[in-house]
Amino acid sequence: MSRPTGAWQQHHPQYRGRMWAASPTFRRQLILLRTLLPPNPAAGCSSSPSSSLRVRAMAATVYEADAEAVVRRITPPLDRARHKGQAGKIAVIGGCREYTGAPYFAAISALKVGADLSHVFCTEDAATVIKSYSPELIVHPILEESYSVRDDERGSVSSKILTEVAKWMERFDCIVVGPGLGRDSFLLDCVSNIMRHARPANIPTVVDGDGLFLVTNNPDLVEGNSLAILTPNVYEYKRLVQKVLNCDIDQETPEQLIALCQKIGGVTIMRKGKEDLICDGKTVTQVSTYGSPRRCGGQGDILAGRVNPMTLGCIAGSLLLRRAASLAFEKNKRSTVTTDIIEFLGKSLEDICPAEH
Amino acid sequence: MSRPTGAWQQHHPQYRGRMWAASPTFRRQLILLRTLLPPNPAAGCSSSPSSSLRVRAMAATVYEADAEAVVRRITPPLDRARHKGQAGKIAVIGGCREYTGAPYFAAISALKVGADLSHVFCTEDAATVIKSYSPELIVHPILEESYSVRDDERGSVSSKILTEVAKWMERFDCIVVGPGLGRDSFLLDCVSNIMRHARPANIPTVVDGDGLFLVTNNPDLVEGNSLAILTPNVYEYKRLVQKVLNCDIDQETPEQLIALCQKIGGVTIMRKGKEDLICDGKTVTQVSTYGSPRRCGGQGDILAGRVNPMTLGCIAGSLLLRRAASLAFEKNKRSTVTTDIIEFLGKSLEDICPAEH
Repeated sequence: MSRPTGAWQQHHPQYRGRMWAASPTFRRQLILLRTLLPPNPAAGCSSSPSSSLRVRAMAATVYEADAEAVVRRITPPLDRARHKGQAGKIAVIGGCREYTGAPYFAAISALKVGADLSHVFCTEDAATVIKSYSPELIVHPILEESYSVRDDERGSVSSKILTEVAKWMERFDCIVVGPGLGRDSFLLDCVSNIMRHARPANIPTVVDGDGLFLVTNNPDLVEGNSLAILTPNVYEYKRLVQKVLNCDIDQETPEQLIALCQKIGGVTIMRKGKEDLICDGKTVTQVSTYGSPRRCGGQGDILAGRVNPMTLGCIAGSLLLRRAASLAFEKNKRSTVTTDIIEFLGKSLEDICPAEH
Repeated sequence: MSRPTGAWQQHHPQYRGRMWAASPTFRRQLILLRTLLPPNPAAGCSSSPSSSLRVRAMAATVYEADAEAVVRRITPPLDRARHKGQAGKIAVIGGCREYTGAPYFAAISALKVGADLSHVFCTEDAATVIKSYSPELIVHPILEESYSVRDDERGSVSSKILTEVAKWMERFDCIVVGPGLGRDSFLLDCVSNIMRHARPANIPTVVDGDGLFLVTNNPDLVEGNSLAILTPNVYEYKRLVQKVLNCDIDQETPEQLIALCQKIGGVTIMRKGKEDLICDGKTVTQVSTYGSPRRCGGQGDILAGRVNPMTLGCIAGSLLLRRAASLAFEKNKRSTVTTDIIEFLGKSLEDICPAEH
């Protein structure tokens, strides 16, 4: 982490330069500077956080991540002696009658940044379509929506689904819950069971899209789970803040993000936007490099495809997407769609962290 | 608007030049010239329009639109602070057991000229196929055709469909009714209900393809709707004229187009052809630049993808398609198909209105 931004940065414009961000001296100085900075008067939200929380929140500063260094650090080396699966196996839980693009984007993106195997668990309707997008994915048509299940069968169908998913679960390095999940109550109940099952197995869990709708209404699903990452966009973040903190959104200062993280407890939150803000309940890190002015649906699903360990994973995912989006925009301008961005994920990673032969 | 064409132009060949078209002096002179021009003897059609209509129709002149300026004017700026959806959300209502290409072309074209989200509402058979064309689209399998609905269920199914569509409707900036809709009576009845629902919600509505078949037989669906645009090709135009004006088609003069517009009331009509003629009931504007000699099925569906506000939207859509078609033809010659044209929509827009970083 380096280069602070926000109100503090306005008074120290000399720290905006990229050269400074790379200087170890500067980074060490920062630690000193932080303790000397006056507290930010625009802290927290109108609800009453604990006093210890307030003290920490008031001193909050957002640091720009040295995201390229993070990508280089966490990208596993390529090694000819390794076997299939050792570079990562992920599973996306999502895809229903209405939505098939989002789970596809998430699953294929994981492969495009180097994962070996990418699974999708979705409904039968969605499975046929997602399979047809790409032969690279392993697609399991095992979820069910209310319309396809009789009331008296719900219990048995639900436990059958959990058993099916559970026998795969142990193999995954990460699960992504939510892209294209939809809002069907029966389906969401089944997914809640899957999340409860994944937790004692210590499987890192990224929650995105409709998974955030589920978690907003049932924060207990991720409460205290240090292996959970929530990745809300501005609308999803607003709903989370309203429900969990019971107040209005404050986008200007990082204190509310810290408060949200602490209130849920343990989780990492990445608030996607013009800048991506990543918070683990203690610090807020920002990734603002690259990026594209296009806001085509599906970009967020790319991000969900690779995360571990928590904050570092968020930073790396953010940078890889932003760089790919920027390259895709350079080529396709206003006509850029998510598929164009995914095409550049490989180059995005290669530019930062070249694969040696 | 500038440069008059047609019979008048033949007597004033000096006004054909493009430089003239850009001259404000020329444009001001035109207003004067229009009032001085002798009335065109070949006006109106054989039925008897009101005398005030005839007076206006007889003085009608077709102006070539300064279409590039229109595109530059109505293309929203790219702004990094914007969120997903703010550059436009459109919905295509179409796609049945027989037709899946047309709604796909319309929906993907909207994304390719910069919209953020593009939905399709179609039958279940069509949905699986349209989804598999592209993960970028959000496809709702909610329409039904007669063959899949029992007679005694029609009422309840019809209202269920309306409820489903209605809950999305408010989010859309524009709906496109008709590409690949087919002619099933039950399905068309459902779509009539959807159109009646969209109208009080003030949602701009483009009617194309089989939607024009529906509207030709039920002009009340768009009567007096200033947010409706009809985009007939020559065959669809002929049927409209026969049904609404009860006379034969007259392609040579613009008066009939004005009469048609006024008889339906309020709507904007874009008659697609060698030149695209756009009429709001008062003036007729033409877009004749570029264009391609290929007439592959599906080109009209591209056009339906982006419109608002009415006439300007028609002009911009016309130009972007014509330019893309021209570029695609240059590359693919006789083998040009609609997918090739869509590939050039981005370049077509970028050439006219470059996206700044």
